[in-house]
This record gives sequence, structure tokens and C-alpha cells, in this order.
Amino acid sequence: MDEKEKCGVFGVYGLKNASELTYLGLFSLQHRGQESAGIVASDGKMVREKKGMGLVSEVFTSRDLKNLPGHIALGHVRYSTAGSSSPRNIQPFIGESRFGHLAIAHNGNLTNALALWKKLSERGAVFQSSTDTELILHLIAQSSFDGFEDSLKDALWQIQGAFSLGILSHHQLIAVRDPWGFRPLALGKLGDGYIISSESCAFNVLGAEFVREVEPGEMIIIDEKGLRSFFYAYSPRKAFCIFELIYFARPDSVVFANQVYQARKNMGRVLAEEEDYSADMVVPIPDSGIFAALGFSEASGIPLEFAMVRNPYVGRTFIRPGQEARELAVKIKLDPIKELIRGKRIIVIEDSIVRGSTSRQRIATLKEAGAREVHMRVSSPPHIFPCHYGIDFPTRGELIASSKSAEEIEKYLGLDSLKYITIDGLKNSIAPPGENYCFACFNGDYPVFPRERGKLILDEKPAINQC
Amino acid sequence: MDEKEKCGVFGVYGLKNASELTYLGLFSLQHRGQESAGIVASDGKMVREKKGMGLVSEVFTSRDLKNLPGHIALGHVRYSTAGSSSPRNIQPFIGESRFGHLAIAHNGNLTNALALWKKLSERGAVFQSSTDTELILHLIAQSSFDGFEDSLKDALWQIQGAFSLGILSHHQLIAVRDPWGFRPLALGKLGDGYIISSESCAFNVLGAEFVREVEPGEMIIIDEKGLRSFFYAYSPRKAFCIFELIYFARPDSVVFANQVYQARKNMGRVLAEEEDYSADMVVPIPDSGIFAALGFSEASGIPLEFAMVRNPYVGRTFIRPGQEARELAVKIKLDPIKELIRGKRIIVIEDSIVRGSTSRQRIATLKEAGAREVHMRVSSPPHIFPCHYGIDFPTRGELIASSKSAEEIEKYLGLDSLKYITIDGLKNSIAPPGENYCFACFNGDYPVFPRERGKLILDEKPAINQC
Amino acid sequence: MDEKEKCGVFGVYGLKNASELTYLGLFSLQHRGQESAGIVASDGKMVREKKGMGLVSEVFTSRDLKNLPGHIALGHVRYSTAGSSSPRNIQPFIGESRFGHLAIAHNGNLTNALALWKKLSERGAVFQSSTDTELILHLIAQSSFDGFEDSLKDALWQIQGAFSLGILSHHQLIAVRDPWGFRPLALGKLGDGYIISSESCAFNVLGAEFVREVEPGEMIIIDEKGLRSFFYAYSPRKAFCIFELIYFARPDSVVFANQVYQARKNMGRVLAEEEDYSADMVVPIPDSGIFAALGFSEASGIPLEFAMVRNPYVGRTFIRPGQEARELAVKIKLDPIKELIRGKRIIVIEDSIVRGSTSRQRIATLKEAGAREVHMRVSSPPHIFPCHYGIDFPTRGELIASSKSAEEIEKYLGLDSLKYITIDGLKNSIAPPGENYCFACFNGDYPVFPRERGKLILDEKPAINQC
Amino acid sequence: MDEKEKCGVFGVYGLKNASELTYLGLFSLQHRGQESAGIVASDGKMVREKKGMGLVSEVFTSRDLKNLPGHIALGHVRYSTAGSSSPRNIQPFIGESRFGHLAIAHNGNLTNALALWKKLSERGAVFQSSTDTELILHLIAQSSFDGFEDSLKDALWQIQGAFSLGILSHHQLIAVRDPWGFRPLALGKLGDGYIISSESCAFNVLGAEFVREVEPGEMIIIDEKGLRSFFYAYSPRKAFCIFELIYFARPDSVVFANQVYQARKNMGRVLAEEEDYSADMVVPIPDSGIFAALGFSEASGIPLEFAMVRNPYVGRTFIRPGQEARELAVKIKLDPIKELIRGKRIIVIEDSIVRGSTSRQRIATLKEAGAREVHMRVSSPPHIFPCHYGIDFPTRGELIASSKSAEEIEKYLGLDSLKYITIDGLKNSIAPPGENYCFACFNGDYPVFPRERGKLILDEKPAINQC
Repeated sequence: MDEKEKCGVFGVYGLKNASELTYLGLFSLQHRGQESAGIVASDGKMVREKKGMGLVSEVFTSRDLKNLPGHIALGHVRYSTAGSSSPRNIQPFIGESRFGHLAIAHNGNLTNALALWKKLSERGAVFQSSTDTELILHLIAQSSFDGFEDSLKDALWQIQGAFSLGILSHHQLIAVRDPWGFRPLALGKLGDGYIISSESCAFNVLGAEFVREVEPGEMIIIDEKGLRSFFYAYSPRKAFCIFELIYFARPDSVVFANQVYQARKNMGRVLAEEEDYSADMVVPIPDSGIFAALGFSEASGIPLEFAMVRNPYVGRTFIRPGQEARELAVKIKLDPIKELIRGKRIIVIEDSIVRGSTSRQRIATLKEAGAREVHMRVSSPPHIFPCHYGIDFPTRGELIASSKSAEEIEKYLGLDSLKYITIDGLKNSIAPPGENYCFACFNGDYPVFPRERGKLILDEKPAINQC
Repeated sequence: MDEKEKCGVFGVYGLKNASELTYLGLFSLQHRGQESAGIVASDGKMVREKKGMGLVSEVFTSRDLKNLPGHIALGHVRYSTAGSSSPRNIQPFIGESRFGHLAIAHNGNLTNALALWKKLSERGAVFQSSTDTELILHLIAQSSFDGFEDSLKDALWQIQGAFSLGILSHHQLIAVRDPWGFRPLALGKLGDGYIISSESCAFNVLGAEFVREVEPGEMIIIDEKGLRSFFYAYSPRKAFCIFELIYFARPDSVVFANQVYQARKNMGRVLAEEEDYSADMVVPIPDSGIFAALGFSEASGIPLEFAMVRNPYVGRTFIRPGQEARELAVKIKLDPIKELIRGKRIIVIEDSIVRGSTSRQRIATLKEAGAREVHMRVSSPPHIFPCHYGIDFPTRGELIASSKSAEEIEKYLGLDSLKYITIDGLKNSIAPPGENYCFACFNGDYPVFPRERGKLILDEKPAINQC
Repeated sequence: MDEKEKCGVFGVYGLKNASELTYLGLFSLQHRGQESAGIVASDGKMVREKKGMGLVSEVFTSRDLKNLPGHIALGHVRYSTAGSSSPRNIQPFIGESRFGHLAIAHNGNLTNALALWKKLSERGAVFQSSTDTELILHLIAQSSFDGFEDSLKDALWQIQGAFSLGILSHHQLIAVRDPWGFRPLALGKLGDGYIISSESCAFNVLGAEFVREVEPGEMIIIDEKGLRSFFYAYSPRKAFCIFELIYFARPDSVVFANQVYQARKNMGRVLAEEEDYSADMVVPIPDSGIFAALGFSEASGIPLEFAMVRNPYVGRTFIRPGQEARELAVKIKLDPIKELIRGKRIIVIEDSIVRGSTSRQRIATLKEAGAREVHMRVSSPPHIFPCHYGIDFPTRGELIASSKSAEEIEKYLGLDSLKYITIDGLKNSIAPPGENYCFACFNGDYPVFPRERGKLILDEKPAINQC
Repeated sequence: MDEKEKCGVFGVYGLKNASELTYLGLFSLQHRGQESAGIVASDGKMVREKKGMGLVSEVFTSRDLKNLPGHIALGHVRYSTAGSSSPRNIQPFIGESRFGHLAIAHNGNLTNALALWKKLSERGAVFQSSTDTELILHLIAQSSFDGFEDSLKDALWQIQGAFSLGILSHHQLIAVRDPWGFRPLALGKLGDGYIISSESCAFNVLGAEFVREVEPGEMIIIDEKGLRSFFYAYSPRKAFCIFELIYFARPDSVVFANQVYQARKNMGRVLAEEEDYSADMVVPIPDSGIFAALGFSEASGIPLEFAMVRNPYVGRTFIRPGQEARELAVKIKLDPIKELIRGKRIIVIEDSIVRGSTSRQRIATLKEAGAREVHMRVSSPPHIFPCHYGIDFPTRGELIASSKSAEEIEKYLGLDSLKYITIDGLKNSIAPPGENYCFACFNGDYPVFPRERGKLILDEKPAINQC
């Protein structure tokens, strides 16, 4: 599928070469944002930064890392919609205020950003970016409290929506998760130092210990006195993003107390158990559908075949030449093995259908390669509502399931049959009680509404850039 | 495994925007060479070129392709050892001679390169590169025959070893395969035009028809009069490279009449059938071991688990920072899922063990993650002899199997058991008679010896750069 | 000499392709700042920007200019000291406030920057740069006035020191000069549109008419209603920077009512008239000493010879290789013609001596080339005090004239004689009354003192970056 | 003027860091070629190279120089016409032959290149570039002599036209000048080492001693046995290029036994003496006309004024924006000082008029700036014939003096009067007898004719790229 996670946050406190560790950590979070990356580091006195458009491997040179000395570092990877992919919006956002230099790395989306922007503007704020992350920094600077910690809490009380934050000052690293807990954030330990990361996979890679997830409504402050934690806000309802488990998080992470790989295999298993099947092979859409396909194959007894081969070299820089060649280029990304498919009944496993256009093309190439029947099973329910908490789904008009029935979609995609997992099936695939999750993109049950608007608006994308 | 294929060849005759098609074709052959790429194109009058170090996506811009007009094009992707990775060695090699501009793209390795170099040099040749490909062009230019075709045949009669060639003149595209047939080369058709490609996967992608493989000892000339084919040399013995099927070729290609994906599944199946097993899971080393692992799992009934997660963003530009961080970075490429592995008996499927150092690290991380037992099954026999026909294996001294017994390797790698497929098992996994293949890297039975040396030298790497 | 002008300002209102004209205008002001350049443009609705490190020719592509549409544009070229040459400090400084997007281009230096920074910070400002230019934008945003114009005046009343400003909003271009008039700023007219520029040379180049200089204490607002002008502040004393005439401004500009080329010739003439000479030739240090040398030669009758040849290709990117070669490289920039110099008595004309190290080397090469006598005449008085109004002189400790007498300098430089022009001589070389000029770097008579410091500090460089 | 010198040659033998010295030397020869640069170095064993498009400062990094170790180096700067500005043509040209690696740096143009190309081609040569320099290397490799020195002489006997050559083998540096001596080449000494350079200015800069010019027909071989010199060919007639003195060579060089600066002053002086004048000022076209203008002013007593100001920042990367702005951009390169010119009678000094288009524009801007009369005096005779010996003049059709009379040119340029120096006047300005010079571009008296053509062709540009 093509949805884009918006951000990954990674921070280090109390370790030599904190920026190098952050560089390695961002590599493990690269799947959460490929458009830009940034690292801010402090040696206790001076705060330095390096940011750039592109992948982690493109943004940083070894020289850059040497120019970011110190034992505290905060990093960020980001994806954003085209219109706002300005260098000014690269995170961590950094500014100098009465509390010295502060840097903020944000994963999520504030639902009252416009109202806050108006209020701050009237008070004389000068803005540099079009991100909601910058608002948090101005709220801290303009707070009527004197101390930094009180001003930070004051700022957090004013923002609404999804935010997993890393905050760096010249001598502190702070981790904050919103009271609903939309986005993940985890705490790790390496030697005498601490690490925060959007996902636990980054801990494995660095040989760090996964301590626990940061709790919804919790703030963790790490400085020379050690680690302090408290709840800055009461958590009325948990709302973990189910899409982290379906698609976004890396399979080797533990997110919301679920081992992600196993959760996805469970989804495939549950999907297989929801009815009887007869087919020659189960084929995953690589790479994302592979785990659900394995679970489906195990549960159904239908053999798994990797009948579509992905070309790993086709990336962002691929030139789509003239019209004629463009049509020839359809299969360059995912080539079906004709010899395997010809005359077979195939069950294709996808993790989600958003617009449907990519799926349609893929099914056409399978039919063209000689498949007798193509059935699709999807490890998420139909996608009907946009996300206001940090996932870049298209607007409602573009979501195929919001305007077409399952039968119409089946026909549009050229399938012999199409089935989605149910919300109940999804709940059965995961460990903690399903009540703690946000299923709003499937059922429209939004835990927090965009505040600055008088009425519920489900169709629009937010005006201020989220992350 | 880490062996490197040395080259991929792709050519187009008789199609508009031949260079654009060649660009797309090289994408499908990128796995055969990631160090440099080049395209030469002719509009029937003028021959133009663009070459560069890096991936296809890095070397060519859409403007470059516009600057390569014409209906004939020849492309090449290349890998080479560090010392000789000079821009001068990027292929296709191009020069101007009494036959006008000629470009040659070569996959393979000449075994009598040094002797030829000496002879040509004495006759007054001026060399630009350190590739054996350039020698072919000088042999054509210095031939005592008058016509181009006769001079080309004269040149081919003088070279020995492995060569699948694409040759472009301002009005012709020529495909040549050596009499042994070491390296693959295939012929395709698209509309009124012809395509040649190291592997058939490139045809699928372009919607072209896979006509057949170019035969050992065959020359195919394509020009405005159409396609002519003949055997320029008698083929005393076939010697198809078995490593193309084990590792190099793309799974969606048909190579030496084998569908590659199925051949690899067969190898896994044969490996499983060679003994009785008892284990909790079969784990492939991604991405190359995945197909043999699937065959192994099916044949043995032991469940397949993708328990090692590959980070697709770790590539050539990854900076390995200071010593401390370097050790932390071991798992950044391949992270085992601890929760899945802990306490389990695991069979790891690899396609080959060359030096053994990478395998050793990976097994260590599995043990560290809590695996109770780790067994390894390898879908190729022990690797003892170097290759003289175009594969960049290390020298004999570095090949772990040439100095250590299977038990010693088992111990060195920290395994609970280690088994290789047998040469007979390998022959049973593939379609055409095993006699047609070259197994020299396993059994030392070299079809052609390096000619300029008085005695058989198995330990050395050739002095002239091969491709 | 090596002093660096800090900035050039250029703006356009009411002309198609305003950004292209600004690009051309910045070329004519490139001598005022070579480190970075920026253009901000407005089409009446949206404000766009492009900035970068380097020369105007390096920062902008023709595509960049196309991406800056609109009839209003503001540009800036900048030089800064090494420590603060951060991309964040490139001007025009741009931010979004309650008045929408505002961009400010500044030439000069605020003397009360630290005090303002403290006040703004306490009120909750978040800073992005370390420039005094940013302060002006925050003062506007935080003003207690409602309207933009009142808020701007409020901001101007609070700042002290040297400032020639261009300000762009989405529908206006504003020019402001400080009440002392330290830095130049001129108004031009082209067709129906207006142009502002640090120097009039940019008008010639564009075929625009030079209307007049902006007056000290004047604000000019240009918008769809036309041009309005008023004095926002009373001008207690004029303090035009004499160094603009001695060295900085381009010879084809008219600055402070002086044609610069002629003013410099006058300085040479006055210098010659201040005593009797006998020598074989007058040799200018190219390119800056050439005009004074011409005046000197005319007045004294001693022939002018261009006996030192400048290599125009030695620029910023010149690599100084190993120690040995470094010493050989002394003359690569300025090579004396031995055949001309040998045995001659030479008068070298310089425009100023700052540290003395470069002059010393040059005189040594002249002696080495065989000059019998080398006399130096300098078209500025001895340089004793630092500048607080925007010129990057070294600190007092580095100024050779602040610690050495004329005789000591003569000896240190290896001269046979050394004479400086007097302040009176300088006054006689220029048109308007000398009382209107600032000679602080020669006589320490500072028109405005740095405010945030309790006592006069002449030795320090300002902490906040000036421009 | 806009003619382009084609090449500069620089070589070092017997000095540590020879490539660094060559880098510095090429800086002093940069005026002889700005399109590409290359350095080849040998440490006695291995020959290494670095070449690139652009200025010396753009092509080489300090790392490149470190990667070019050794005590022998050969460098080249080059200009070429647009069509052939391929990276393949960058010099020194380097190839491997039976004599090992050889590199050739060439200034000049072979007049029998096409015939040689044909002969070599028939013998089986494979060409890489379209330069006549490459031909020399093939002639050496294909010579029927055994030894290198004899083969080199054999090659030199076959080539005709202009060639000042530097040749590097792994242990030798060789300097060769053609029997006519068209292009300069000088020998210098630094410590125990030797330097060769197209111009002596490079010696001054490195602190090296100018030993003498290489003689027409001389070959100098420098190796571990020291320096040997002999005449490989008889010199029937000298033909020094007069344009080196008029325009190309640097003023601080000694070329053909003339100090260039003084020769140019002499030309101005002679020009002034050829008639009576009455005018208000003499104005040079900077920078090239400045020396003749000084001589003219001295001889005539008419004051010199630098009334046209050159913008040194307008270089190759200057973007010429849309039509409207383009017209405004005329004066961006050379801005006349209106205040100085208004109402004055001006004598403009140019060194040559080729096409006339640039001169026409400049005279128009002077008139526009208010000049009462504009007279032009040119320090070269009318330019009628193309050059076959290495200078990139336009074809005869484009040379304004080949189709228009002096009166017509005067009118076309908008001048009040126009006078050229005579050939006799030119001869009187220079030291050695005028018979030793080539004036072919003025009088059509070509010392050597292009050989491969049956008849004299004066209008065409050569097909093979010269240097």
C-alpha cells in the first residue's frame, strides 16, 4: 500500500558520540519517513544541528557527525506531502528562546493547530515553518510560567491530538506522549545512557535494552540527575493507532505490547479462518503483505509462493521516460513469474486498499501472466475515513471504499473475489484489549476532534502540516 | 552471500527511443553490477554515449536519455574489484577504428587476455582501459581481413574463455556467446524490434516476447536487413555457470532453460530430502536464501519463519562511525526477532558460504537472541576453487572451504550442524542434463585454462580486469 | 586591502520579472558581499524565497528565478565572519507574523542589539538566526500598535546604529535609512516601477534612472497606490561612512553625492600634492589602488606603470598545498614584472593598510624583483579604531596602526618611506562638507555608542552578527 | 576581444610534489584555456591522472593532488569550440602502448591531421578522442623503430603545423617545439628540478629561474641522467605567433624574447605616433586594452581615464534571463561612468576587432552615456584570415574585416573615426626581427598549408580538434 507514515523520533542521553548513535538509530526508523532527516546534538554547552532533504544515508556524512559532538542528541526522519516539502519544515525544529536553544522532534498531528497559530500570532510570534511542531516551541517561549518545566507543561496542556515528542535542550532530553497514546514511543537503556525511539527495533540494532513504552500522558526528563517521570495529564481514553500494527511499524519492533511480525501473521491466520478456501497458491504483495500471507498459508494449508518479484533498485530517482516506454515500465517494480502463475487459482494477500489504482494494475499483470482466478484477501477492514492523527491517507473522495461497495471494488479491481478482515477479527489478532485502539479510519469513531472547527469535518486534510 | 556478478548486457535494435528502453532494461539487470553503468546509442549516423559510476538510477537523467537518440542502443552494468574501479573501465567500451565507432558490452572473462595484450601492444596498439573488453576492439581493428564481419570473426577466433557480448556499430546490433556458453544471453522481440539481454526478466518488464537463448558459439547480427544468425565456432563442450541458478540470476528469469525461482525451490527441496530433520522453524537469510528455504519447508514440513528482518535502507553510503558505534552496528542490516527465536531450534538456509565471516556474525546474533540450536543448510556445495569465467570469488586462500573441513567450518561458524547440498543433488534440481554445466568452483574441473600461463594456477586472480 | 563590506541591498517594485531584475542588480552589488545571496519575491499573494551560500552566480539558476514570480522582489548579498557563516543567517531574513510574511534586507549594524535581544526574549520570542536583522522583525511583530506601518515605525524608534533597510511584504516594498545615514541607499526608476539599491551602479546597468539617495531618517513606502515618503525620525547628525568612498563602493556609483571614481582620483591627487616626490614610476596595487594611482601620477607627473599583474583566476577555491609549495605560491595572486622594476624607484599606491601582513609580502616581492626603492602612499589615514557600523575591520589588537607608529610600520613593511593621506586631505577630496562623514575608524569619534554596555568599548567585535 | 587561445602546457621533473607545483603552474596559464584541465603524474613506477571540465580551481581538490604522487608531472589547460567539448578530449591525452603509459600535452594545431588519421586508422588504430594530440601517440606506438626516442622522432617527422608539446612517460619529461616555433614554450629551473611552461610567468610565481625558451625544432629530454637537448628537425623559417604578444600571453611573461607588457605599451605608443590626435581622454577596454592605452596616453599626452568599469563577478555561469531583462543586461559586464564621459571626445583603445558585434555594443553605450565623439584605435591590423595554428578565430565569413572596408567598419561600429596599427608599426613595437613572426591572420601569408587538402582553403575551420 501507499500510505505514508509521517515521522520517526530518536534521542540519546548520556552516551559518547550521541549523534553517531542517533544516525544509526534513524536508519532503523527510516521506514517512518524518507523525505528529510535531521540531527541536533548538545555537548552540554552548545547545540548544533544538521538537516537535509533525502534519506539518512544521503543527508549525513561522517564529517557532519564529527561536527555534532556531545552526549545528548535528538534525531528525526520525516515524510510530508509535496506542497510543504520545504527545507524549513525539516525536523527537529530548533529555535532560541528565553530558555536557550530548544529542539523538538514530533511524530503525530495537533488537532487544534490553527487556533493556536492565531493566538500566538496575535501575541507577536514570528513563524519560520508551516509545521505544528513549531507551535509547541512558541507556546513554551510565550508561557506565563517562569521555569522551563512549568512552561513546557503549560504548552502541553494547550495542544490536542497526536504527539509523541522528543525535546532537547542544551542539558536535557525529554520524551512526551499524548494522553491518548496515538503514536508509539519507547524507552531504552544502553550502558549508563538512555535512548528514546519511536520503535523498539532501533534498540535491538544498537544492542540497547528495551525498557518499556512511554505511557500515554507521561513525560520523562533525562538530565545529569538521571531520569524522572510523571504524568503531566490524565489519560481519558487510550487510542493506539491500529495501522502501526497493520502496516507502518517494522516487523521486528514491539509496539503497543505486540510483537509486530506475530500480530501480522495472526491477521493472516484470522483472515484464513473467517471462511473456507480452495486455491492453488497464496501470493503476497511484497514486501508488506508477506507476513499475513505466511499466516494465511499456515492456517489454510494452501502453499505459499513468492510469485511476484520486486526489483529493489527501483526507487525515488527512477525516471519515467516518454509515454510509450512508460506503459512498458509498469512491471519494472513487481514482475510476476509467468511460468508459476499460468493456469493457477491465486489468493493475493494485501495489507490495505486505499485508492485501489495500484492494486488494479497488479491484478491486471497477474491475469495477463495467465492466472486462472485471482482472489484478494486484505488484512485491514475497508478504509473509509481520513486520519487526523498523523497518517497521510488521501482525502475521503479518493478512498475507494468510501464511495464504492465491496462488490463494486471487486469489479473495479478485476478480481474473482475480494474479502477484508473484520474489525473484530483484527481485535482478535492483537494482544491488549481492542478497546485501547483507534479504528477511526475504518469506523469514523474519532477520539479527538479538530478543535478549531465548529463541526465535524471528515473530508479535509489539515491546513497546517502535521507530522 | 557476498560474491559479485560482474556484468549485465542489454541491447535494442529497431525501436524508437532505444536508449529509454535500454535504461529500463538495465534496471532489470542492476543485480548483475552496481558499480557503473553505460549506454551507447546510434541513430544510424552518429554514435553517442553516457557512462558513469553508480547505479543506473544515479548515472542517467532524463536529459541524458534525450541526448542519446536513435533506434539502436547498447547498455551495460558492471561491478569490479576496488583497485580497478576507474571511470576508464566503464562499459560499453567505445572506440573509433577503420570501421567507424564500435561499442562492446561484455559479460564474462577472457582467459588468454595477457597474451593478446602483448601481441596487440607489439603491433602498436594504444590502450585506454585495463579491461579485456578493449582487447576485442583492437583485435577487430588490427585484423588482416578487410570487411567488418570477417574481422569480427577473426577476433572471436583469437579470444578464449567466457564472453557474452553485445556489439554496436552505427547501423548494427550484434550478439555473441562464447562456444562454452558460460554466461547467459537471451534474444527477445518487441513490436518490429529486437532486444538482447543477459537475462529474460528484462523482457517481461518491457512487455517483450522471450524468443530464445543465444546459443553457445552463435553470432546474431541485426541490421536494416533483419536478423541473421550463424555459428562462428564449434562448441566442443557446454559449460553453463551453475552459480547463475544458485545465486546470481533474478528469480523471475529463465536461464539455461531453467525457471530460476523453481530451480532454487528444488534445491531447497533436494536439500531437505537428503536427510531427516527435526527443528522448530526454517529461517532464510534474506533475500537470497528465501526460495530454497520455501522448498525446504515444504519438503520437510518444518514451518517457515522470516525471523531475520532486513533493513532495505542500509546501502553503499552507510557510514560506519567510530569503533564503539561500529560494533553496535552489526545488526543494523539484519535484525533477528528475539521474541520468535528465543528457545527455538532453527534451521538457517543460505545459498553459499564463501569466506564465512558474515555467516559467523549472523549465527552469533541468532544465538544471542536466544536460539536453542542453530543448524545451517546450504544450497550449494563447498566452495573450493576460484572462478576464471567472470565471477568475483575471493582467491583460494580466502575461501573457507578450501582450507577447512566441514566440521571445522561448523565449529568456526558456531553451528550445531552444517550440511551442504551435493553436486548430484544440485544436478537433480535443474532441468537440462548436468553435464552441460560448469561446476569448477566446487570440483576444480575447469573447461578452459588460462592460456598465457605455463601451468594451472588456481589461486590467483587474473591480472587483467574481467567482466 | 582586505576589509570586507558586509552587505548589499536591492529591491524592485512594479516591474514584471522583478526577481530577474533583482538577480541582475545583485550582480552589480556583488562586491558588497560574496558569502551568501538571497532573493525574496511576491506576486501580491504569495511570498517565495531562494537563498544560498556563495556568489550570486552560484546561488541562482534560471529555474530558481522562474520559481520566484511576481512584481515585487527584495535581494541581498552578504559577507560575514567565519564563525557565523551559517545558512540560517543568509538574508533577506523572512518570517511569518500577524502581518503575514515579511522579509528584511539589512546593510549596517545595530549598536543596541544585545539589549533588544534580551527584551524580546523575555517576551517569548523564538529566534532562528544570530543576526541583528531578525530583531527588527520581532520588534514589528511584538509592537503594541495595531497597524503594520505604526508597528514598523515603533520598531525603528527602538533600534540604534547603522541600518539601510529594504523591507518586503506581500504587497509593499519599503526603503529605510537610519538617521545618521551611515550606509548608502539609493532610489531609482525604471518604466513604471521603482528600484532601491545600496549603490547607483545597479541603476546604470539596468538602464534605470537614478532618482536620488534615500535621506537619513527617511522611510519610503511603495505599493499599488504609488510612492510615499516621510521622515520617521529626526537626524541629529549625519555620519556617512568615508570608507564607502575610499574602498567599498564601485567606481561607477554615485555615493553620498560623490562620483566614486573621481573622488578616488582626487585622493591620489591630494596625496601627491601633500609633498614633493622623485621616483621612476607610480605602481598601483590592483585593482583597488588603481584610481588613486592615476590621480597621483597626473598630479606628480611621475609615470604610471601597471608593474604588478593580478591573476584573476585565483579565488576562494584556490588550494594551498603543502608547506613547500605554499611559500612558492605567494606571487600567484600578484606577480611583479621584473624587467620593468629592476633598479627603479617605485611609489606604490594602496588604499589602506589594516593588518599590514599582505602589504609586507607584496613589498618583499617588489624588492626581490630588483626595485631600488619602494615608497608607499596610502589614500586613507592610519586605521586605529574598529567599526561599529557594519564594516568588518579586525579588532584593535590586529590593526597595525593602533599599536605601531608610522615609522615602525614603515620599518615592518620594509619600505623606504611611508605616507598616509590626512583627514583634512580626505575632506578636500570629496564634495559635500566633511562634517557629514564618519571618520571614527581613524579618529575614534563614534557618532553612536553601543548602548547595552556601560562604557565605551572600542576593542571588541560585536557579539551579535551585524550586516 | 573574444578570440580564444587554445591551450597551455606545464611540466615538472625532479621536484617533490610535482603535481602540486603543476597545479600552481596551471593557475598562471589559466588564461590560455578555461574549459578543461588535467594533470598526469608519475612516481617513477605508476602514472596517475586527474582531468575535468572547468577551471583549474574547479577541477582539482587537495585530495586529488595527494592522489597524484611523484616527482614528474605534466599539466594542461584547454579551451575548445562547443561541439567538441567532450570529456574525452581533455588533455594531457594518455594511453598505454608498447612503451608503457605515455601522456601528451599539446598547444598548437597539426595541419596534416586528417591524412595522418586515415593512415593510422588503416593500420588498425582505435581512437578515443577527436583531438590531433591523440594522433601523435598512435604514431609513436605504430612506429617501425624499436626504441622510444627513435619512435618519438619518427612521429615528429610525420606531423606538420604548430605544436609545442610536453610528453610524460613513467620516468621522463620531454619538451618539443615545432620547427616554425608558432607557439611559445619555455624552460625553467627550480632547485635541482626542471620546469617547462607555455609562458615564463609561471616561473616567477613559483620562484623558479627562467632559463631560456625551447628553440624551434628542439627536443629536450629530462630524466634521471639529467637534461639532454638536440634539434630533431631543421627549422626552415621561424613563424612566431604575433597574437601571443598582442593579446594572448600574460603581461608578466617574456615570450619570443619580448617582455609582453612592454611590447603592448610599445604598440600603443607606435599607434599614437602614427598620426596627430586631439581628444579629451584615452579609455582602454579593460582588461586587455589597458597596456596599449597607457603607451598611447604617454606618447600622445592625452590623459588616460578608466571610464569603463568591468564587473569581475560576471562569468560563465551568468544566467541571461528573459528577453526584456536580457537587453537590460548589456552593461552588466562593462559599465561606462556617465559623469566622466558626458560631452567628452574619447579615444577607445582595443587590441583587436574580430566580429565587431561586441565593440559595436560598447560604443553604443558610450554614446548613450553622453560621449561627444568616440574614436577607436586598435593595436592590431585588420583581421582578415583564419588561423590554422591553434587560435580559435571565427571563419572568414564572420571576420568583419574580411568583408568590410575600414570605412564600412567605422560606420557599422558607430565610430567617429577608426584606425588600426600597421604591420610595419607592429614590427617596430617588438624586439626580434619581424621576419621571424607569423602575420598570416592579417596578410594571408601562411607558413605551412593544411596538407590533406588539394588546394588552399582559408575559410574553413579544421575538422579535427586542434589545441
